[in-house]
Amino acid sequence: MRGAVLYGPRDVRFEERDAPKIVEPTDAVIRIALTCVCGSDLWPYRGFNAIPEPTPMGHEYCGIVEEVGRAVQSVKPGQFVIGSFATSDNTCPNCRYGYQSSCVHREFITRAQAPVLRVPLADGTLVPTPGVPSDDLLPSLLTTSDVLGTGWFAADAANVKPGSTVAVVGDGAVGLLGVLSAKQMGAERIIAMSRHEKRQKLARDFGATDIVIERGDEGGARIIDLTNGIGADSVLECVGTQESMMQAIHAARPGGWVGYVGVPHGVQLDGEELFFEHVHLHGGPAPVRKYLPKLIELVWGRKINPGKVFDLMLPLDQVAEGYRAMDERRAIKALLQP
Amino acid sequence: MRGAVLYGPRDVRFEERDAPKIVEPTDAVIRIALTCVCGSDLWPYRGFNAIPEPTPMGHEYCGIVEEVGRAVQSVKPGQFVIGSFATSDNTCPNCRYGYQSSCVHREFITRAQAPVLRVPLADGTLVPTPGVPSDDLLPSLLTTSDVLGTGWFAADAANVKPGSTVAVVGDGAVGLLGVLSAKQMGAERIIAMSRHEKRQKLARDFGATDIVIERGDEGGARIIDLTNGIGADSVLECVGTQESMMQAIHAARPGGWVGYVGVPHGVQLDGEELFFEHVHLHGGPAPVRKYLPKLIELVWGRKINPGKVFDLMLPLDQVAEGYRAMDERRAIKALLQP
Repeated sequence: MRGAVLYGPRDVRFEERDAPKIVEPTDAVIRIALTCVCGSDLWPYRGFNAIPEPTPMGHEYCGIVEEVGRAVQSVKPGQFVIGSFATSDNTCPNCRYGYQSSCVHREFITRAQAPVLRVPLADGTLVPTPGVPSDDLLPSLLTTSDVLGTGWFAADAANVKPGSTVAVVGDGAVGLLGVLSAKQMGAERIIAMSRHEKRQKLARDFGATDIVIERGDEGGARIIDLTNGIGADSVLECVGTQESMMQAIHAARPGGWVGYVGVPHGVQLDGEELFFEHVHLHGGPAPVRKYLPKLIELVWGRKINPGKVFDLMLPLDQVAEGYRAMDERRAIKALLQP
Repeated sequence: MRGAVLYGPRDVRFEERDAPKIVEPTDAVIRIALTCVCGSDLWPYRGFNAIPEPTPMGHEYCGIVEEVGRAVQSVKPGQFVIGSFATSDNTCPNCRYGYQSSCVHREFITRAQAPVLRVPLADGTLVPTPGVPSDDLLPSLLTTSDVLGTGWFAADAANVKPGSTVAVVGDGAVGLLGVLSAKQMGAERIIAMSRHEKRQKLARDFGATDIVIERGDEGGARIIDLTNGIGADSVLECVGTQESMMQAIHAARPGGWVGYVGVPHGVQLDGEELFFEHVHLHGGPAPVRKYLPKLIELVWGRKINPGKVFDLMLPLDQVAEGYRAMDERRAIKALLQP
């Protein structure tokens, strides 16, 4: 079997690896229908995270169960399933509180840019769809595995409610699906921050009512202007840099909420500044498992079409081009077909 | 009129100042019944904040209205009133959202360790009591002006609900009243962190069910131990140092809440660490004005006795001894009688 392996900055190879098999009785092995490149894959790709050894890549996946361990009860071979990028037993206290991505038995999936994948804790991680989906639904179903679930968590963590005024920092796929999520949650006004025409258009398709092109302090100030000098009720931070985080914090009103899902890189928050900003701050790895049933239902019923974030489709063996296109911002998100 | 003025580290003087008078038509002037020294006064007293010029001190107060400006409608001379340390118009958007301490017209009160005080924005800042209180109620009524309101906000920001498991970092007066607040909000288990016998006893009086004496990383780990390896639902941070803030963050479960009200001094939060801790973080200057009617009602009805935090009572002219006693931790909180 061949899969994607990152050797160093901007060096992704598609090469022979051992085929996954059942290791623990709680495992499943699935044949991947579609996978993709995540914005967070770009951190190590760009050299922001150390790559001490060749690292198999990929954590977004959906497909057909091929085999399950003897302890697996809730999924069986032949079913189409989707799972989170973080495995979970879905029974520990953290899972029961709805934080499956902090499950006490969590592992992060890292080998999904491949035709076959082992998924630990299958019962607690995988959710079957109502049937085997038609091909046109596959891209949207794939998004529920991470990028949509993460945008949804950003909106949820930012307390988006019917009537809210929302700002979204970041016009990557997560930010765009944060717009979609805020719209689904009933936001009245959704301000997307983007200076990229194609992404602005998609943001509007997903429900953005305003576009702000300014960034940094100027971007934060523009949001304050647009909200009668007070700030947004809810701000979704979907990048993970110092600039984007402070832009988000400054864009929220006192007592407002910042939901942050961009994996922070080099972000330092000054306690005193945060204190006087008076915002609520919540984020982390999205508990996708919690949202999967709801998100699958929305996609299955064709109520939402999050698959539109994929603007590049490649056969899996061209995975390196997928990374390049996203790194150069030629593509919003690259879909990969094994 | 004589009042407290801070000249430099550990140099508080009680000296002649101009008597306050009405400046704006929205002002009130009140004769102070009781005032006190705040834990936050110790930051500049200890030299952690610069003192560029002699600075009048004090921001906790209650007393009888002497005079009001011509625009003041809701309070009148002869009424007993209590106000927040932060003035508010109580009508701007931030006030209407319940964040009066971020009112667009906010000023911080700074001259309350004196017999007479000018209070700007009297209509939006002051709350009259149902009548002139008996002397034994005065200390508890005074606490509603800041220290109780701040402990209450810590518990509210930390989402304390009936049945919650709560940890309180800090055994100063705010932390102790955070315990009382959590108890009032229905917390089932309240873990107070203190290694000081008198404060431990008061914490138990206010509702603490457990005492933890460890600090720092060890303190955080002890809370995790006490909560089945998961962490507390709600943690109240009532100190404001790097160590106390990280102790609070580490003591909360994933998805738990940290309410922080200790004014942060030198606190830097690492974005990536915060992300994986998965906590909710909210704090800032407490919107005491929001809580005043409720807290006055609880004190007036003798449902709570927060005045027990005052373990030193001094005539106002001995204000310097009040600072010394709190600095040396000989007193929890010093009451001052003009």
